[in-house]
Amino acid sequence: MGKRLVVIGGVAGGASAAAKAKRENPELEVVVYEKSGWVSYGACGLPYVLSGEIPQLEKLVARTPEAFWKQGVRVHTHHEVLEVDYGRRVLTVRDHAEGRTFQDRFDHLVIATGARPALPPLPGGEQEGVYTLRNMEDGQRLLRALEGARRAAILGAGYIGLEVAEAFRRRGLEVTLLELKDRPLPHWDPEVGGLLRQELERHGVEVWTGVRVEALRGLGRVEAVETSEGVVPADLVLLATGIRPNVELAQTMGVALGPTGAIATDERMRTNLEGVYAAGDVAESFHQVLKRPFWLPLGDVANKHGRTAGSVIAGKDARFQGVVGTAIFKAFDLAVATTGLSLEAARKEGLAAQKVFIQARDGAHYYPGSRPLWVELVYEEGTGRLLGGAVVAYGQGALRIDTLAALLHRGSTLEDLLGLDLAYAPPFSPVWDPLLIAAQQAH
Amino acid sequence: MGKRLVVIGGVAGGASAAAKAKRENPELEVVVYEKSGWVSYGACGLPYVLSGEIPQLEKLVARTPEAFWKQGVRVHTHHEVLEVDYGRRVLTVRDHAEGRTFQDRFDHLVIATGARPALPPLPGGEQEGVYTLRNMEDGQRLLRALEGARRAAILGAGYIGLEVAEAFRRRGLEVTLLELKDRPLPHWDPEVGGLLRQELERHGVEVWTGVRVEALRGLGRVEAVETSEGVVPADLVLLATGIRPNVELAQTMGVALGPTGAIATDERMRTNLEGVYAAGDVAESFHQVLKRPFWLPLGDVANKHGRTAGSVIAGKDARFQGVVGTAIFKAFDLAVATTGLSLEAARKEGLAAQKVFIQARDGAHYYPGSRPLWVELVYEEGTGRLLGGAVVAYGQGALRIDTLAALLHRGSTLEDLLGLDLAYAPPFSPVWDPLLIAAQQAH
Repeated sequence: MGKRLVVIGGVAGGASAAAKAKRENPELEVVVYEKSGWVSYGACGLPYVLSGEIPQLEKLVARTPEAFWKQGVRVHTHHEVLEVDYGRRVLTVRDHAEGRTFQDRFDHLVIATGARPALPPLPGGEQEGVYTLRNMEDGQRLLRALEGARRAAILGAGYIGLEVAEAFRRRGLEVTLLELKDRPLPHWDPEVGGLLRQELERHGVEVWTGVRVEALRGLGRVEAVETSEGVVPADLVLLATGIRPNVELAQTMGVALGPTGAIATDERMRTNLEGVYAAGDVAESFHQVLKRPFWLPLGDVANKHGRTAGSVIAGKDARFQGVVGTAIFKAFDLAVATTGLSLEAARKEGLAAQKVFIQARDGAHYYPGSRPLWVELVYEEGTGRLLGGAVVAYGQGALRIDTLAALLHRGSTLEDLLGLDLAYAPPFSPVWDPLLIAAQQAH
Repeated sequence: MGKRLVVIGGVAGGASAAAKAKRENPELEVVVYEKSGWVSYGACGLPYVLSGEIPQLEKLVARTPEAFWKQGVRVHTHHEVLEVDYGRRVLTVRDHAEGRTFQDRFDHLVIATGARPALPPLPGGEQEGVYTLRNMEDGQRLLRALEGARRAAILGAGYIGLEVAEAFRRRGLEVTLLELKDRPLPHWDPEVGGLLRQELERHGVEVWTGVRVEALRGLGRVEAVETSEGVVPADLVLLATGIRPNVELAQTMGVALGPTGAIATDERMRTNLEGVYAAGDVAESFHQVLKRPFWLPLGDVANKHGRTAGSVIAGKDARFQGVVGTAIFKAFDLAVATTGLSLEAARKEGLAAQKVFIQARDGAHYYPGSRPLWVELVYEEGTGRLLGGAVVAYGQGALRIDTLAALLHRGSTLEDLLGLDLAYAPPFSPVWDPLLIAAQQAH
């Protein structure tokens, strides 16, 4: 008889782990318990459902529970794992649909419990009309709320806040974006935030930065946001002030967390407990520039975690090679991509970091329809070692970030970048690729 | 007094060398002799002038002769260097505008004489209505010819033939593309050629492959192309069957050619003769995958050659780090990018090469407007070393080729590619980037 793998959480990391383990080793019994009503979906697509560009939430589903069952993976939605007795290899599971609690056993366990919004204590925050956006149920609630809404306030100008600002504007709402720090995308250097601010304002988003949110006003239903800079009327409030990993279950069973507060794993996604793995937003990744664990709760990373864990459990020699912190998102027409360390982050690490920030174009100067494109490079003085960078573009030209990411994985220098034979033709690049222009300027 | 640098040819490599040398060392006397009437222009933009997308040829000019003179670079157009006496460091120059011949001297010399169409012997090829497309004068002639033209035949389905097929269609011409080999883009593997054929035919281009052109029919003005497969009526014929380097002047002065037939240089763009450099389409590059000299006559390479030569002449320690053979072009809506070796080329090298060719998308499966995207990876069996690849896309997503190019420079493997932290968000990529999907399949 095969061994029994139980996966807790079936969105991205968990779904990948289950599917991969079963595919690689059909002898395995694979069971997935997912607390919500949905498994295997692209949560990153939620803003595009809110905007109306994607007609239904269902479109985000990569693989239905039926498809999993057909593959032999026993997926149970509305099933919450309440407790794990690691010593006895036994789980206590609550079936919320049937209202019953039962026990199950495992040989291998994958913890893929994800993350949840990190909600600041906010007077009035419990009222109706206040939302977060993490999962499909959040999406359903927000879709309903959008029908009557006119004025939205979004708290937090990170990825989610920025993507949803666009979505709400597409739905015709008035949108105010409120950010405590002095710029949109505050974790990155200010030039990128400045471009984002312009783009948001060009599309009618009110951007308030350096503003502290003090309370939500209303009589059971939100009416306004009270801030340090004044009152923002709003009948819909989205809290997008960050997330934190759902580590509680793991902690109670004795799984060790890492320095970031997410679950520590090795490159095979093994935790400190034998037979127990972690994958997705609940787990850390090794950062190849920082050379230490890092928390990068993004969908593609979750899938890689899960695939690695699934392969290892199935007996294959798979390794997750870590991250360099690459991310991309779209705000209206602007594509913003970053990788590695910002200048601020690099200097906080004590590195003698410098940066260049250049404006170029995404095609030859004479090519009709070519548009501006910006590149930031962060590098170490003296050695020229690349530490990070950003590409901002109108469109997929921002994928140049992947070339930088490839270099970061190898500890490459400005000199290495300058030596690259990059693709050139007038519709795609100036004769000197923007990455090379930036590297020349830094060199 | 400063030393005297003479640059022969002022289009891309030559213009870059002259400008860079003067910028880095203002003491240098810098003189450029250019045979044609134009310097410092993007010849790669010519197809977009023919199509009408770029309104005038002048738009392609990066830097006018006046701008060069202002910088202190003495640019002379319509000046042909007839002979170089290397021993005496003396050139004989023909001023075609004034009809006079004179001598000049140099301390440093850059040969940037470019390339010219390699014309097959073709009965009837000397008639009116038969064109090539290399330089601005060619562009001017073709622009005039297009006014009365109705039916074009293009001989050769390489980059130029494919780009011009699109340009001619945009001008409303009937277009037949004639290719000796069995597919468009015959130097690459057949799947890419198949996609190109579809795209061309979808846009009304007749694509004849495996066809030998035997003669051009007409009575002084071309009327038809006689081929092994039948007669193609045409009042305009473009010969796009390849190019060859203009090495004759270099040879007569004793400059050594490399195995490719272009000028051999070291990584500082120095030839075998002291003080004599080569840059641009007339010069070889070192190929980092093949580990030997390679001829890659492309605009971005020419600019790098020129910049390197100019820096070295100015006394800086610059090096050209070679190529991996990256190229990109557009045929109608399709962007085709290749780098390194095709499977055919790799096997011709005696490598135990394999390939995968996959179809993915340029966005998440649910993202509206996401389009197909194809990736080919060529790799060495056993070691997994990457040898080359292609990305075909609708738009700038094809720039993923640059990530492959970066890996090729470092001798990376499929495993290295699989370990990359690439950018993911629904508008830009599936959760597994197409490069990673291909690498998984190959792995």
